[in-house]
Amino acid sequence: MKNIAILCSGGDVSGMNAALKRFVEYSIGKGLRPYFVDHGFDGLIDNNIYEACYSDVAGIISRGGTKIHSSRSKRFMEQSYRKQAIDNLKSHNIGYLVVLGGDGSFKGMQALSDESEGLSFAGIPATIDNDIAGTEYCLGVDTALNVIKYAIDSIRDTASSFSRAFVIEAMGRESGYLALVSALTSGAEMCLIPEIPYDLDNYKSCFQKQRIEGRDYFIAVVSEALKNSEEVAQWFEEELGVESRITVLGHIQRGGNTTVYDRLMAFHFVTQAINGLLEGNKSSVICYGDGGFNHKKIEEVAYKKYQINPELLKLGREFGCHI
Amino acid sequence: MKNIAILCSGGDVSGMNAALKRFVEYSIGKGLRPYFVDHGFDGLIDNNIYEACYSDVAGIISRGGTKIHSSRSKRFMEQSYRKQAIDNLKSHNIGYLVVLGGDGSFKGMQALSDESEGLSFAGIPATIDNDIAGTEYCLGVDTALNVIKYAIDSIRDTASSFSRAFVIEAMGRESGYLALVSALTSGAEMCLIPEIPYDLDNYKSCFQKQRIEGRDYFIAVVSEALKNSEEVAQWFEEELGVESRITVLGHIQRGGNTTVYDRLMAFHFVTQAINGLLEGNKSSVICYGDGGFNHKKIEEVAYKKYQINPELLKLGREFGCHI
Amino acid sequence: MKNIAILCSGGDVSGMNAALKRFVEYSIGKGLRPYFVDHGFDGLIDNNIYEACYSDVAGIISRGGTKIHSSRSKRFMEQSYRKQAIDNLKSHNIGYLVVLGGDGSFKGMQALSDESEGLSFAGIPATIDNDIAGTEYCLGVDTALNVIKYAIDSIRDTASSFSRAFVIEAMGRESGYLALVSALTSGAEMCLIPEIPYDLDNYKSCFQKQRIEGRDYFIAVVSEALKNSEEVAQWFEEELGVESRITVLGHIQRGGNTTVYDRLMAFHFVTQAINGLLEGNKSSVICYGDGGFNHKKIEEVAYKKYQINPELLKLGREFGCHI
Amino acid sequence: MKNIAILCSGGDVSGMNAALKRFVEYSIGKGLRPYFVDHGFDGLIDNNIYEACYSDVAGIISRGGTKIHSSRSKRFMEQSYRKQAIDNLKSHNIGYLVVLGGDGSFKGMQALSDESEGLSFAGIPATIDNDIAGTEYCLGVDTALNVIKYAIDSIRDTASSFSRAFVIEAMGRESGYLALVSALTSGAEMCLIPEIPYDLDNYKSCFQKQRIEGRDYFIAVVSEALKNSEEVAQWFEEELGVESRITVLGHIQRGGNTTVYDRLMAFHFVTQAINGLLEGNKSSVICYGDGGFNHKKIEEVAYKKYQINPELLKLGREFGCHI
Repeated sequence: MKNIAILCSGGDVSGMNAALKRFVEYSIGKGLRPYFVDHGFDGLIDNNIYEACYSDVAGIISRGGTKIHSSRSKRFMEQSYRKQAIDNLKSHNIGYLVVLGGDGSFKGMQALSDESEGLSFAGIPATIDNDIAGTEYCLGVDTALNVIKYAIDSIRDTASSFSRAFVIEAMGRESGYLALVSALTSGAEMCLIPEIPYDLDNYKSCFQKQRIEGRDYFIAVVSEALKNSEEVAQWFEEELGVESRITVLGHIQRGGNTTVYDRLMAFHFVTQAINGLLEGNKSSVICYGDGGFNHKKIEEVAYKKYQINPELLKLGREFGCHI
Repeated sequence: MKNIAILCSGGDVSGMNAALKRFVEYSIGKGLRPYFVDHGFDGLIDNNIYEACYSDVAGIISRGGTKIHSSRSKRFMEQSYRKQAIDNLKSHNIGYLVVLGGDGSFKGMQALSDESEGLSFAGIPATIDNDIAGTEYCLGVDTALNVIKYAIDSIRDTASSFSRAFVIEAMGRESGYLALVSALTSGAEMCLIPEIPYDLDNYKSCFQKQRIEGRDYFIAVVSEALKNSEEVAQWFEEELGVESRITVLGHIQRGGNTTVYDRLMAFHFVTQAINGLLEGNKSSVICYGDGGFNHKKIEEVAYKKYQINPELLKLGREFGCHI
Repeated sequence: MKNIAILCSGGDVSGMNAALKRFVEYSIGKGLRPYFVDHGFDGLIDNNIYEACYSDVAGIISRGGTKIHSSRSKRFMEQSYRKQAIDNLKSHNIGYLVVLGGDGSFKGMQALSDESEGLSFAGIPATIDNDIAGTEYCLGVDTALNVIKYAIDSIRDTASSFSRAFVIEAMGRESGYLALVSALTSGAEMCLIPEIPYDLDNYKSCFQKQRIEGRDYFIAVVSEALKNSEEVAQWFEEELGVESRITVLGHIQRGGNTTVYDRLMAFHFVTQAINGLLEGNKSSVICYGDGGFNHKKIEEVAYKKYQINPELLKLGREFGCHI
Repeated sequence: MKNIAILCSGGDVSGMNAALKRFVEYSIGKGLRPYFVDHGFDGLIDNNIYEACYSDVAGIISRGGTKIHSSRSKRFMEQSYRKQAIDNLKSHNIGYLVVLGGDGSFKGMQALSDESEGLSFAGIPATIDNDIAGTEYCLGVDTALNVIKYAIDSIRDTASSFSRAFVIEAMGRESGYLALVSALTSGAEMCLIPEIPYDLDNYKSCFQKQRIEGRDYFIAVVSEALKNSEEVAQWFEEELGVESRITVLGHIQRGGNTTVYDRLMAFHFVTQAINGLLEGNKSSVICYGDGGFNHKKIEEVAYKKYQINPELLKLGREFGCHI
């Protein structure tokens, strides 16, 4: 079976479209016939599967989101629906399936793999949360970070005009990665993430000293996981006497014109995925680490907890005491 | 007295810095000595007034916010503080004052004018709400609109990937201008603003028809004044069966790299303000209308209600029935 | 005949796609059937004419260029080809034609109008050169200006890092509009356009004084019409002893994500064009001036020379002597 | 000697300012006193050396170029000037020097190291050409790539509107890295770089086939090193009958708002440089490879030829034959 399919699952990220473009072009280059599955695992169940061609991917490389839609399928939890999905793949003579998504998507992929024969699977980590164990990078993170950067730059204009504190809530589910890197690279004064215990009191004397020296605004970036925006905003008002505002960045973080880095990573991830399938890998996730790509078993990826790089955490621990 | 001062009051907007640059350069070109008042009317009271020079405005033309800080002064409501402000201006031999701000700021300016002698005042409308009667344009609106545009483009990526409805809440206080223009120019499917009565039922059959024809996501832009985001999101879920999300754009709307239009308007507004003062205007607001600038009395501006241009409102009324 | 067609002619501009979207939606709203002509007047001759529907304009509002292609048709100079074009329009029962383009395109439109019966024509000024007499604004100018702004901001980074002069050549054919507004709003130190006679010597003492006071880089924006980039660069090297570089901005000026202003103007221009046709105008160009829209005869537009707004020229004359 | 200095040499890149910010903050955090050298090695010779403080680096993190100026010093070739430089460093009690730049700058650093005692040196690769042997990444490359991406996206709008070929010349000196990655990630149809021999004839049948299938525009990205833009443009006109245009991207490629990746790499590079100096490294260059940082001897870096990553080259070889 020389047919190969791709689907997107879970939260959408910028870079998925670049991956689709590469998927179509590289598949054809390797003598495979490419198929798209629309609407993720739900589309597998409902047989939303169709052959893809060059014109389907023309002009999509720069666009956020995914042209073939993503979904979070509840039905896929049930084996009867997964059997339907496998039958649908076979009815199209599809022997290879590439899945873009996160932990949950890879577990679904594993189930499919366990319950089918003659089908091979490759997962590509794609989530702005960058919270998948085993890979240092997930598709979409760089674009999300640059979107956040623009938002914080914009908010800083207002903060500095008004002598205010701004508490900016970044996405990331249980992972502080987005908040940490955004805080570091936007020159924020405070960064609070689940991975680093914090005590606002530690910031107090430092910020008071800064205020005396002339600083008149503060940017705090906090992880959504902490659910502490209100508390932090109040702290600025009560302990430092600085008027404060909260901004929840929300869904703008998912979209945006795909950065060069994400386009390139999309290319590499897809190339690796297809190469691995052609070399006989039955079920693996393409991981990025130490500057290269590895094909790991799903168990090593989907059932472990992601750890932020220790060098980054060290940078994060410098907050609050750098004066 | 050949000294002239400028201050920013109320909400900050992108374009204030371009105005400051023009203020310094044009004042000097006209033989005046330019002064900055830091922190708005509070700065007048506290004598935060200093002579400005070229190097103060180098490189600021593109930046959002205001270098000389803005404020909303409560003390300024009291006459004793206003007297202090007038004394401070006189102590610097300042004869002309330019005020960037909105309705409230112009009322404060009027009070200063009524209670002083030998001082002349010019107001420049500056608020992203575009809600000042008598002028078709307020500084900062174009930049805010373009920031919102990027945000909506970004959200559309996600909406289209997931077959969702997104309810996007835009700023504007009591005015629907930002929401209306954003909805029109981003191709949103729904627009709800205070100026146009709405009935969600009117959208229902239209949207249902669109869904049958294949549309799988909806963008609704709503004015913060309506406080109805939750209600609209719920409507999408219950009446149309579409999963929905709310995004409150928040303070990112105020900042951002100043657009060319706002830079140019800043130049024109300041040029007009200084010309008017030199020609003997005692107290006026520079208004834009019919493609040109007029100097209007504060009464005509600060005490009337702003009306959105009827042509725009007509475009806004087309929503919900264009199929 | 209730069918209406649209075509794009001459140089492409950002905003044409927004115009196409509005054209389809507003035509249908008015009970007309919309048609697209692909490849401008050449498409008319070759009968590249097809009915347009909603899905043709979905998602194009933000994109530069034009989905229906533009062209500069040589054949259209010959009457026999124009007769073919008229026959093709009639074969589709098209009674109204909207033309987006510049001077030359409007002359072509006039010829069609003179040589046909029962057909009505409306022109929409669309050229980044902003050089059409009778209208203060041509579609695409605002986006072009903002693209140039980003380019100059980027070049300024390098100029200031190296104590260099940069001579930046902006488009505009015989018109200095783009160069003038770009120079003003990017804080350039020199601006040379065809509309303002210049003598580099006038800049010399001023720039020498600035150098002594600490300025170590210069940005000069020059109009492509002057063909003097080399000369100006050499002048910086020889007369001021400043290393210099030339950057020809080129075709990046035509594209880019359409600004809100251009999207809104596209809406208004198209609405006006269709309204005018329905009201019985046989052949006119929609012009913008004094804050509103007028329908002018082609003779008033295509055969006169464009003049830059005097207020802008006055600002332009301040260059070179503001210290 | 607890004093440490930093200078920028050679072409400026976006990310240098982020490095300066980190340099000041991390030095102070480590108990060192930070100094800036203005104007690169020329500044060392002329004793343009001053202590830096927090306020010097406030708000610069996002800006392209370098606040402390760069230079290409001819005098530094002569030993007498280098002796002067060493004396100046000693006069400020500076024991550590960090140099941002490329090959040439590191050779200069090596000479200083050979001719001085008690001074330690660390080099940070910073050039958009990404052409330094021994490191996979040089500061500034990611921002340059994203600036090019925007330019190509913009040009594509025009190319697709007009059925044209665009030949886009990217920087990179002798290295094809920028051109290759830009071509790949912008979906260009042709990529010509020094590292991959090419024969335009190989593209011919492929492009002719594409034209027949409906493709009506082509984007070619070529390396400045090849000096073949004219030739390629002519080839499109003569062999394919497609109107063509050339765009030389020029200096816009150097500047632009620093991307998150470059800001983060700036942080890591500087942290590594200072840590290495404190650990006793006398003279090394901080290199990035295999996902981590290494401290290499200058001989391993400055005197070898850079090789583009083989995986990337493989992707580059796919051009011209993917149909």
